Amino acid sequence: MGGTGLVMGTMKAWGMDMSSRAVSPPMLSGSGNGKTVLILGAGLAGMTAAYELGKVGYQCTILEARDFAGGRCQTARAGFRLTELGGEEQQCRFDESYYINHGPWRIPFNHQSTLHYTREFGVPLETFVNDNDAAYLYFEDVDGPLANKPVRQFEIKADLRGQVNELLAKSIHASQLDLPLTGDDKKKLLDYLVNEGYLSASDFSYQGTGGRGYKVNPGAGTEPGPGEASDPLALKDLLASGMGHVYRSVHSFTQQATMFQPVGGMDRIARAFEQRVGNRIRYGMEVGRIRQHGDQVIISGKQLADNGDFELAADYCLCTIPLSVLRHIDTDFSPTFSDAIGQVAYEPTCKIGLQMKRRFWEEDHFIYGGHIRTNLKGIGNISLPSDQWQSAKGVLLGYYNFGANAAEVSAKSLEERTRFALEAGEKIFPGAYQSSCESSFSVAWHRVKYNLGGWAEWNDQARATAYPTLLNAEGRVLLAGEHLSYLTGWMAGAIESSWQQMAKLHAMAQQA
Amino acid sequence: MGGTGLVMGTMKAWGMDMSSRAVSPPMLSGSGNGKTVLILGAGLAGMTAAYELGKVGYQCTILEARDFAGGRCQTARAGFRLTELGGEEQQCRFDESYYINHGPWRIPFNHQSTLHYTREFGVPLETFVNDNDAAYLYFEDVDGPLANKPVRQFEIKADLRGQVNELLAKSIHASQLDLPLTGDDKKKLLDYLVNEGYLSASDFSYQGTGGRGYKVNPGAGTEPGPGEASDPLALKDLLASGMGHVYRSVHSFTQQATMFQPVGGMDRIARAFEQRVGNRIRYGMEVGRIRQHGDQVIISGKQLADNGDFELAADYCLCTIPLSVLRHIDTDFSPTFSDAIGQVAYEPTCKIGLQMKRRFWEEDHFIYGGHIRTNLKGIGNISLPSDQWQSAKGVLLGYYNFGANAAEVSAKSLEERTRFALEAGEKIFPGAYQSSCESSFSVAWHRVKYNLGGWAEWNDQARATAYPTLLNAEGRVLLAGEHLSYLTGWMAGAIESSWQQMAKLHAMAQQA
Repeated sequence: MGGTGLVMGTMKAWGMDMSSRAVSPPMLSGSGNGKTVLILGAGLAGMTAAYELGKVGYQCTILEARDFAGGRCQTARAGFRLTELGGEEQQCRFDESYYINHGPWRIPFNHQSTLHYTREFGVPLETFVNDNDAAYLYFEDVDGPLANKPVRQFEIKADLRGQVNELLAKSIHASQLDLPLTGDDKKKLLDYLVNEGYLSASDFSYQGTGGRGYKVNPGAGTEPGPGEASDPLALKDLLASGMGHVYRSVHSFTQQATMFQPVGGMDRIARAFEQRVGNRIRYGMEVGRIRQHGDQVIISGKQLADNGDFELAADYCLCTIPLSVLRHIDTDFSPTFSDAIGQVAYEPTCKIGLQMKRRFWEEDHFIYGGHIRTNLKGIGNISLPSDQWQSAKGVLLGYYNFGANAAEVSAKSLEERTRFALEAGEKIFPGAYQSSCESSFSVAWHRVKYNLGGWAEWNDQARATAYPTLLNAEGRVLLAGEHLSYLTGWMAGAIESSWQQMAKLHAMAQQA
Repeated sequence: MGGTGLVMGTMKAWGMDMSSRAVSPPMLSGSGNGKTVLILGAGLAGMTAAYELGKVGYQCTILEARDFAGGRCQTARAGFRLTELGGEEQQCRFDESYYINHGPWRIPFNHQSTLHYTREFGVPLETFVNDNDAAYLYFEDVDGPLANKPVRQFEIKADLRGQVNELLAKSIHASQLDLPLTGDDKKKLLDYLVNEGYLSASDFSYQGTGGRGYKVNPGAGTEPGPGEASDPLALKDLLASGMGHVYRSVHSFTQQATMFQPVGGMDRIARAFEQRVGNRIRYGMEVGRIRQHGDQVIISGKQLADNGDFELAADYCLCTIPLSVLRHIDTDFSPTFSDAIGQVAYEPTCKIGLQMKRRFWEEDHFIYGGHIRTNLKGIGNISLPSDQWQSAKGVLLGYYNFGANAAEVSAKSLEERTRFALEAGEKIFPGAYQSSCESSFSVAWHRVKYNLGGWAEWNDQARATAYPTLLNAEGRVLLAGEHLSYLTGWMAGAIESSWQQMAKLHAMAQQA
């Protein structure tokens, strides 16, 4: 009678080898037969479950404490309000069409689960520029002459790789190395090093290259004509600065091109789900207690609209509440399960959006999107918008920090946070950054009531013990969310966890 | 009385050093006083001149042989017609909203002259994905086991850089090398190599990394959970394949991110110019003769509409006709000038757009834009569209070839070209490529009547002699176009050349 809920979509040709992975929702064969499911939380995990379980005949109701759906999948645009715990109320005052994605803000190409829904729902995507070698590095108080000034990333890459290749190529040529390679392979390796590093084929020296930028760019006529070459930075200075550590051979798995963002803001994804399951959502329902009696799960709490109480019962419950919040809710979960919930740390994280009245990074510096990578404490990257190229204004991400830095920054008032962000940016774009800023909007996710953190941050110990425990059904309750994945902090983690847990719920219901 | 036409806009902070370059039109002080200018060719060079010279009081008339403006800045969409010399008429039959930019197709961020006009005219831009490590390499008949199969570029990059770094790091650690570095620098270099190449910090070995892709991608729960790591390719096999030569330390100057394309097709730029100078353009005017008498330039030729003759006189002439075509026009240029025109080679080049009824590269292979780099003769790269992500259909670029390859491919009929392109693509996307193709549109620029080549391809000899000659005024005639720049084949070359030559024309007129 069906119920092979765990069968996930398979795919071919991922990498060199064939492989399978979650690229589409589980095939839920059989019917939910009208069984009721209370879904706690109208984030992506909860709405995914309502959408898919609804298709096979479950009666889902989503309880959402907020008055909007999406969970952390939020976009701050004009009118958006946020009050952090113990903080002042912020109201976003950006100009029309400008926004900041202060929660998730990019979709890697390999998060096919997220892209499954943007495609199914027809959410228009545009490229998120995650890699821009023209963007500056700015490292403060490092050794050597590269400290405290903006340096283009292509200078760092070209000069480090060029000079490192030069070292290796000259050594190979001089037969200094005892390499595990044949003579023919050594020749091929030399060819590779010369080509990759723009070395001289005759003496293997690196003298710079057009890709690191020119003093004067090539153009028309004879002036500038071919342009004027720029001089490489010294290897010693590059190594002293530590700037080479900002890039690697390839981006890590979740940071690779092509990355996307929905046109108009990340919450377009939340809205697309809401269009389909919004009639199943009850807003302003703050869960306070989870109980199981016999064949029923009973959820009670407060209706925020009238401060009244509610109590609802269902055959099953899928709880997508972040563990950071769930641990404060009154449940009758087993001690093992409750203990597991308590073992998971949540990452403090802050972002700030700064509306600039002029896109000086494009107009004056020719940097279109990407990240200004800094070592400024509490700042991290300054990230430039990938939308509305060449338009009048722009909202950039003034800081994105984690952990202790986030704890420190979040203690500031909005005004202090803004000043903090502007003072940092001014070091990189002197004369333009502070004076261009018209408006700001900040978030400290660990101070947001229904989140209490950016995402679950598992340590090895908790992964080994608490994690498998929390994947199991606790009676008729199943948990789901980014926290029950290895894609924590990503929308794909929420969606894929929901796929897996709904499949378990379905299998359980089929066997009941 | 003004006339400092050669003053170009300057800019700060390009690269580490301050530098100047052409980022905006020349400041033409004083007035053109109604002097007449015949501009030959309504490509970007010609329209730029009409637009800017018109602003300061010149009476410009553009003579254009075609019945549309833009020159090579064309976009083939439904209804677009092209007949190559000696060829059949092609009519583009792509579905609505789909197109191929068969001329210029990408704008590098450092081509500020082009971006000056997209901004001034409000032409909406979107990112052109020029770098996608998830895209395949496909090398036929190379040595070793990587021949004849698609390999993702991130595998090649991660494994080559990882293993090359391993070689160097182990050698440094074993003190095999006599390096011009202090002990402290060596330690920093080791740190850099470890980080860049994802090496083990303990023994400097490279064992692969998530960035090269997984056998099974990370996901939710415990299955796939953390995913399953993939195995590196052997250094020997990588070297044998030659695949490492497709990438370098940084992209070359004109290939760097962030690249753009106008939303809806490259000809949006031509249309934006045309909106502003269209009333100065006379279409269907095929120039046959250029003469100078006294203070006048006299242009005569054929009006294609009625096959009648025309003769027009003006104070000045700016001729943007490609040299490949100009050399066949009857002129009274000096022998030195005429000889210089004849010295420049033009590049044969072909493109083909293939409309696919399904975006199998996205749906089945998760490749969103970028280039499938091949060594297939006459194919080169297969380039995937950067627009309309996840939409129903897509037009990809089936080949882009030059020189002898282009000469060979262009000898084929459209049907043969299509078959040639499909057979190549089928090797990389077996079962999908050929069967998905609904429609094709091809161009061989060296067979297009008013172009006779893709762009000017200067050799060193011609750059030294013919090039400076052609930059000078020949009486009251000045030449302009991409051919008079070091940005040949780029729209920026046409625009910046036009800026320079119009400034010379203005200076000449001011002194007359």
